[in-house]
Amino acid sequence: MNEPATSTLPVQDARIYPRGGLDVLSRTEVARLRDASSGGMHELLRRCALAVLTSGSASDDPRAARDLYPHFDIQVTQQDRGVRIDLQNAPAMAFVDGQIIRGVAELLFAVVRDLAWTAIELGPEYATELESSEGITDAVFGLLRNARVLRPADPNLVVCWGGHSISRDEYLYTKQVGYELGLRGLDICTGCGPGAMKGPMKGATIAHAKQRKTHTRYIGITEPGIIAAESPNPIVNELVIMPDIEKRLEAFVRMAHGIIVFPGGVGTAEEILYLLGILLREENAHVPFPLIFTGPTIAAPYFEQIDRFIRLTLGEAATSRYEIVIGDAPEVAKKMFAGIRQVREARIAHKDSFYFNWGLSIPLEFQRPFVPTHEAMAALDLHHGRPASALAADLRRAFSGIVAGNVKEEGMRRIEQHGPFEIHGAPDMMQALDGLLRAFVEQRRMKIAGEYRPCYRVVA
Amino acid sequence: MNEPATSTLPVQDARIYPRGGLDVLSRTEVARLRDASSGGMHELLRRCALAVLTSGSASDDPRAARDLYPHFDIQVTQQDRGVRIDLQNAPAMAFVDGQIIRGVAELLFAVVRDLAWTAIELGPEYATELESSEGITDAVFGLLRNARVLRPADPNLVVCWGGHSISRDEYLYTKQVGYELGLRGLDICTGCGPGAMKGPMKGATIAHAKQRKTHTRYIGITEPGIIAAESPNPIVNELVIMPDIEKRLEAFVRMAHGIIVFPGGVGTAEEILYLLGILLREENAHVPFPLIFTGPTIAAPYFEQIDRFIRLTLGEAATSRYEIVIGDAPEVAKKMFAGIRQVREARIAHKDSFYFNWGLSIPLEFQRPFVPTHEAMAALDLHHGRPASALAADLRRAFSGIVAGNVKEEGMRRIEQHGPFEIHGAPDMMQALDGLLRAFVEQRRMKIAGEYRPCYRVVA
Amino acid sequence: MNEPATSTLPVQDARIYPRGGLDVLSRTEVARLRDASSGGMHELLRRCALAVLTSGSASDDPRAARDLYPHFDIQVTQQDRGVRIDLQNAPAMAFVDGQIIRGVAELLFAVVRDLAWTAIELGPEYATELESSEGITDAVFGLLRNARVLRPADPNLVVCWGGHSISRDEYLYTKQVGYELGLRGLDICTGCGPGAMKGPMKGATIAHAKQRKTHTRYIGITEPGIIAAESPNPIVNELVIMPDIEKRLEAFVRMAHGIIVFPGGVGTAEEILYLLGILLREENAHVPFPLIFTGPTIAAPYFEQIDRFIRLTLGEAATSRYEIVIGDAPEVAKKMFAGIRQVREARIAHKDSFYFNWGLSIPLEFQRPFVPTHEAMAALDLHHGRPASALAADLRRAFSGIVAGNVKEEGMRRIEQHGPFEIHGAPDMMQALDGLLRAFVEQRRMKIAGEYRPCYRVVA
Amino acid sequence: MNEPATSTLPVQDARIYPRGGLDVLSRTEVARLRDASSGGMHELLRRCALAVLTSGSASDDPRAARDLYPHFDIQVTQQDRGVRIDLQNAPAMAFVDGQIIRGVAELLFAVVRDLAWTAIELGPEYATELESSEGITDAVFGLLRNARVLRPADPNLVVCWGGHSISRDEYLYTKQVGYELGLRGLDICTGCGPGAMKGPMKGATIAHAKQRKTHTRYIGITEPGIIAAESPNPIVNELVIMPDIEKRLEAFVRMAHGIIVFPGGVGTAEEILYLLGILLREENAHVPFPLIFTGPTIAAPYFEQIDRFIRLTLGEAATSRYEIVIGDAPEVAKKMFAGIRQVREARIAHKDSFYFNWGLSIPLEFQRPFVPTHEAMAALDLHHGRPASALAADLRRAFSGIVAGNVKEEGMRRIEQHGPFEIHGAPDMMQALDGLLRAFVEQRRMKIAGEYRPCYRVVA
Repeated sequence: MNEPATSTLPVQDARIYPRGGLDVLSRTEVARLRDASSGGMHELLRRCALAVLTSGSASDDPRAARDLYPHFDIQVTQQDRGVRIDLQNAPAMAFVDGQIIRGVAELLFAVVRDLAWTAIELGPEYATELESSEGITDAVFGLLRNARVLRPADPNLVVCWGGHSISRDEYLYTKQVGYELGLRGLDICTGCGPGAMKGPMKGATIAHAKQRKTHTRYIGITEPGIIAAESPNPIVNELVIMPDIEKRLEAFVRMAHGIIVFPGGVGTAEEILYLLGILLREENAHVPFPLIFTGPTIAAPYFEQIDRFIRLTLGEAATSRYEIVIGDAPEVAKKMFAGIRQVREARIAHKDSFYFNWGLSIPLEFQRPFVPTHEAMAALDLHHGRPASALAADLRRAFSGIVAGNVKEEGMRRIEQHGPFEIHGAPDMMQALDGLLRAFVEQRRMKIAGEYRPCYRVVA
Repeated sequence: MNEPATSTLPVQDARIYPRGGLDVLSRTEVARLRDASSGGMHELLRRCALAVLTSGSASDDPRAARDLYPHFDIQVTQQDRGVRIDLQNAPAMAFVDGQIIRGVAELLFAVVRDLAWTAIELGPEYATELESSEGITDAVFGLLRNARVLRPADPNLVVCWGGHSISRDEYLYTKQVGYELGLRGLDICTGCGPGAMKGPMKGATIAHAKQRKTHTRYIGITEPGIIAAESPNPIVNELVIMPDIEKRLEAFVRMAHGIIVFPGGVGTAEEILYLLGILLREENAHVPFPLIFTGPTIAAPYFEQIDRFIRLTLGEAATSRYEIVIGDAPEVAKKMFAGIRQVREARIAHKDSFYFNWGLSIPLEFQRPFVPTHEAMAALDLHHGRPASALAADLRRAFSGIVAGNVKEEGMRRIEQHGPFEIHGAPDMMQALDGLLRAFVEQRRMKIAGEYRPCYRVVA
Repeated sequence: MNEPATSTLPVQDARIYPRGGLDVLSRTEVARLRDASSGGMHELLRRCALAVLTSGSASDDPRAARDLYPHFDIQVTQQDRGVRIDLQNAPAMAFVDGQIIRGVAELLFAVVRDLAWTAIELGPEYATELESSEGITDAVFGLLRNARVLRPADPNLVVCWGGHSISRDEYLYTKQVGYELGLRGLDICTGCGPGAMKGPMKGATIAHAKQRKTHTRYIGITEPGIIAAESPNPIVNELVIMPDIEKRLEAFVRMAHGIIVFPGGVGTAEEILYLLGILLREENAHVPFPLIFTGPTIAAPYFEQIDRFIRLTLGEAATSRYEIVIGDAPEVAKKMFAGIRQVREARIAHKDSFYFNWGLSIPLEFQRPFVPTHEAMAALDLHHGRPASALAADLRRAFSGIVAGNVKEEGMRRIEQHGPFEIHGAPDMMQALDGLLRAFVEQRRMKIAGEYRPCYRVVA
Repeated sequence: MNEPATSTLPVQDARIYPRGGLDVLSRTEVARLRDASSGGMHELLRRCALAVLTSGSASDDPRAARDLYPHFDIQVTQQDRGVRIDLQNAPAMAFVDGQIIRGVAELLFAVVRDLAWTAIELGPEYATELESSEGITDAVFGLLRNARVLRPADPNLVVCWGGHSISRDEYLYTKQVGYELGLRGLDICTGCGPGAMKGPMKGATIAHAKQRKTHTRYIGITEPGIIAAESPNPIVNELVIMPDIEKRLEAFVRMAHGIIVFPGGVGTAEEILYLLGILLREENAHVPFPLIFTGPTIAAPYFEQIDRFIRLTLGEAATSRYEIVIGDAPEVAKKMFAGIRQVREARIAHKDSFYFNWGLSIPLEFQRPFVPTHEAMAALDLHHGRPASALAADLRRAFSGIVAGNVKEEGMRRIEQHGPFEIHGAPDMMQALDGLLRAFVEQRRMKIAGEYRPCYRVVA
């Protein structure tokens, strides 16, 4: 009955009955899930599903996957006893002798579960709730709880940020750091793509095995735009798809007991500014939050440049919230371990939960989705004299917009139509920004097709 | 700060941090829980909490408990990290060397959890949803899921109904039946009080130990009015408090893979009529539902009378939905085991879930809470010629009203003010009803203070 | 092929493939096991097997069982893949719908395992090793390890001694003590028969369930003569059959982290003297060993008499090693809990193991099997002036001989042939002994057929 | 108190209390263990311990380790509560923040446990038992059981043989095969060194993680001479040290449910001939034993040469017992999976155990340790016309002797003193042997210092 697939890659049909979070649903929920997945959400579901079904493939590029599996389709069907997932022309690599690989199936359920939750619980009728800071935090909490990643256990979760496209030396270093973290019983959470998102998980896997740690967590937090561009690496054993970039960032910082930043590109810079902007708020001065920038020796200049940029824009005080460690993986792990012990004590002292950092104040300006139109980019105010937190918020948006203008479909289309973004800022700041971005390009930390042409123009 | 307790029984204060279902709450949920428990729900919470804290006491009468622990109080307090339960002047019997007994703590969490869910999810803003049959079923489902009693495992749950006040012979027989069920790996669900609600669990406990069954389920389903009058027996390891009698009945029949009815009083008669009323509906003709009436030899006359009453009122056809087994516990267990296997096959064939009987049609007239006012009782239509299901619904209400008029505070007050209920019915049916009730009184199956005076009057 | 059973009780044939301790055997071991069980050991195996197959029956009398199941037989067969147990005409009560009850099967494996070990490892070729105190202790250790009851966990094992034939009040009290022990997380070890050997296990079962303790231990230590007379109670989940009384006693005191003595008869008196004889040795003065004599209020006179007897025979100093608690189950449990904590500390301080009390010195005279011939009984030296430990050893033997003369087949035959034993002792001591035994008879603590005629004669 | 270590590598002292197999020992056993480890066995213990403590190091060469950690020492000390292991100047790489890595500790316990068992159970007093084939098999069984690697689970253990020194392509291929085996739920057993002994475990680790297999087995079977030259790779989670090469080979074939041979050198050739010699015996004709030779495409010539050598020496019939698969990892796994299913059925049909292949007949000539003296080598009879099994036994010995003469200390000394071994054989066979060995040298499959000079001379 299947149309013959023109693709040369082997494909397979399958019926899957989900467990864990999708196994006890009411009839109403099943119906809404089915409707959501066959309606507007269907193409998104198809893309995300294909990303997890090709997890671990050589190319690591789901867009290639879409070309390779053009006839792939997914349907979520209602059954009285629950949900059934029908796959058509699915990549054979996700199967062994006709059976889907269990870990891949779990990631697939996660995709359905999170897209459904988003469709059902964050639908238009909840729009007003999502207008307030508290409402957004509740939505983030609800989605993470529904994904069952919030667990009342001792603090041990290290979030690792960094680029998908890093040098071999840098990659090996992220593995070493992951190994040292794993030896100390720490779990890993990343953006779940390749590069610095994969290395720490790989290293931790080996260390966890050596320490005979049986309950290991390799959490990937992604969002539809990202997962459609980067398959989750195959080590991820807990996957969450947040609805947008801002909620994903909030999920990272609320779940993290500490954060390590490896070398990366514009995305990493965006993450650093997001986090510093929050940590530099008066309200968060008392919240302990271990934050370490680290890389191998060859990455030292990279972090020097980042450090200079932070000092210039957010001021010297900003440096008190992070530490730079170069070429010393055990030291990174020891510092992180010690820092997390302080987090534990502070949470107990403030009767805060271990699994969600309620105590951190995240203002609405960091939570509202930023759509990088020319107007929005022109409205950014990158001048000295503003509070560090507010300036960080705008700098974060600037980087976000530049990423979009460079590589995201919609952003690129806007640049084509209307020319480069105009960004208003203090000359020294803009110059530093420019320098940073050029360095990223030179170091091949950004995916650029052809010659790099900046998608923005500085207006003093 | 505690006032000195005048009670002679030892008491204790305690702070408890709940787990399992109350451990990962949002700040909003915690706040609503705190508000609900300090507002109108507080007295109800206090009563239910006291009932579980005195679980296993000799008296088995929580009303006595309220006299014995007059200064007992409970507060649910908000903390960022979750919920804290403060107990004041709590019965010392619930503690060992200052630590609350873990099983008692779990029942206490169940009380808070279910009352909170009811307050939060079944509040006034959901009133319209609870007007439809589907809406009510969804509410029942939601509460059971929130209580984590719905699990996707093989069908093995036997609901046992019967009286709290039964003879020693009858009690021993319920233990034997529980033992034989337990030997066959079946789990038990009852109303969780004494008598026929405790015996099967006790018997199953011994059998499960002999069979080295490690995951055993002794589920108690109760409702606020009942738990306030009957402490859950100490074997119960999963407790659910449904908001009213009708939802409790629906929980029983949707979760059961089979039901055994032991001798009982008016309450048991109400349960039988509720279930037969549903099973006799055309829509449910194809739904397998093992239903066995059983007791020791001395209980034979009891079931003969019940059987006659059913034939007279609901017709001969009704007898096809149940079987009577006298004095043969192994036979009961074997029949139930075989019946549940059929249920399993039918669920698979219809792709229905194992943990919730969605396939059973329960009409709104069986779901709507029945308030036994004089008007409502007078409106009952107990005549021949009506469909068996409709007549069963009204007979169920008649028994429910009589229970209220006999023993429930509000019902008794109504009778005092307005005289006995008037019930309209066919003479032979009313005579049979009368005979049944008098037999219950003679056999001491009803708690009656002083001489029995019927709270109703038959009007042809 | 089965002869028709003349017994009226239902029987069943079965083939069972053992697990746990019998599942990884060498071909040589399997062959020796098969030989041992078909040779001289066969009748013993048959009796012990029948005892466990009728565990939990009303009569609790395996001799009755032998009459009721005259055609029962058991064969241990060799298979390359291990051992097969063939049962013929086995009691149907051990089966459910044709399947053996899992707990009963485990007890059956224990019987085969321990008898085999005894036959293989304690055979004639090891006779010399069993001549030394160290050799005997190693044999006890080896058998317990092979039975997998030695586990490196925190000390929590309470051995309970006391009579099989006790009053209802006393039985209920043993349950209460077991309940209080269980609430505090303690496990129970007894001689595994009825009465005081069953009550504490029953009480602990309920408490363990309430405390949600999942790994519970109800260890029964017996020996062939005793198990042939008393079926293990059905709560026992670990069973060990030691080869003789002395090794059973050593197993008790080496495994116990504390001992509670309930009212009992001559057997209990024998146990008390055995233990005190050891504890009063100079070498054991520093070894902490919680020892509590306890019973309900009505048992107070019983313990007064025991206490007087100990003071008279072993001296006042002996009272420092035990404590008498009357009618206060929680107090018993609290004292035992505190005592075991001290045991834990002492074991750590002396680097002794938790699971086997190597530090306790047990001299050869307490270890050598005592055969109560007339010569041996006449050789006992029950006079003042001997070291308490030596006197206790002889008193222990005196009680052991009296038990044999009263109820054991061989002992009774000896009395019939040669008249009563002659016991030499100091008059006051012999009078006290006499008084104690008469009290046991009056209190019906001894199984006596017809009028009690003492099986011994005191010779000053 | 430690002498200052002259080594530049960081070292650490530690005290370790073993678990699992060493935790419940009698005092006698502890004393014998202590004596054995401080006596003649001490140097061996020291070397093996150092090998596991440097597991996972870059060099993978324990001899280098001995130079790097010259002051390392290990003492096994008696304590009443069991055994204590004292490490002095141990490699710091085995520790994290002062704590030994748990997996390394387990390997260390395995070393002590197996050397102790060998010293205690295979001592001189058991010499006669080790003269018979049955006695040797029992010794192999006993050691494996004591090491707790025999488990009554479904057959799923694939033994992988192959060289420690293989090309990158070959190594990646072994990982792919391991991955495909792991996807099918199969566990891995190897000689536990690098190369083909590590690759399959690594591949399986990833596949097991993807399939969420929680109980994974990566068994390493080694012997003192080998472990002293090759650290176990860090994935190994069950380690057994057999006393000599022949018992190690027997352990492999008795535990294996199937064997895969990757490219290797002389050692691999020895293993192939050992196994074929056994499988070609008349008695084993009916025993199913999946045996696959496999490698990447570039290894095709290698297996062609091996295949030719087998046909020439053992005859065409020998080829019926193995299959050659080139460059198709999924196919290898599918064939192995299917083969193991047949093994399972045969074991059930013959009532043989799953965990130990009792049914395989291994004659004494394959079991007796072969000491490659010049006399023994000269006595080999490598001519046509002998039974395949007998010839295979001598060929196996020839390879074993050549390995010794090339790389083992004692063998090399013998060659130095007495000149090359003289080997008697049919010219074509000897030529083929010569060709094979030269190919190994060319392909760098043998560790040769300097120019390759054959250690043997062919005598027709």
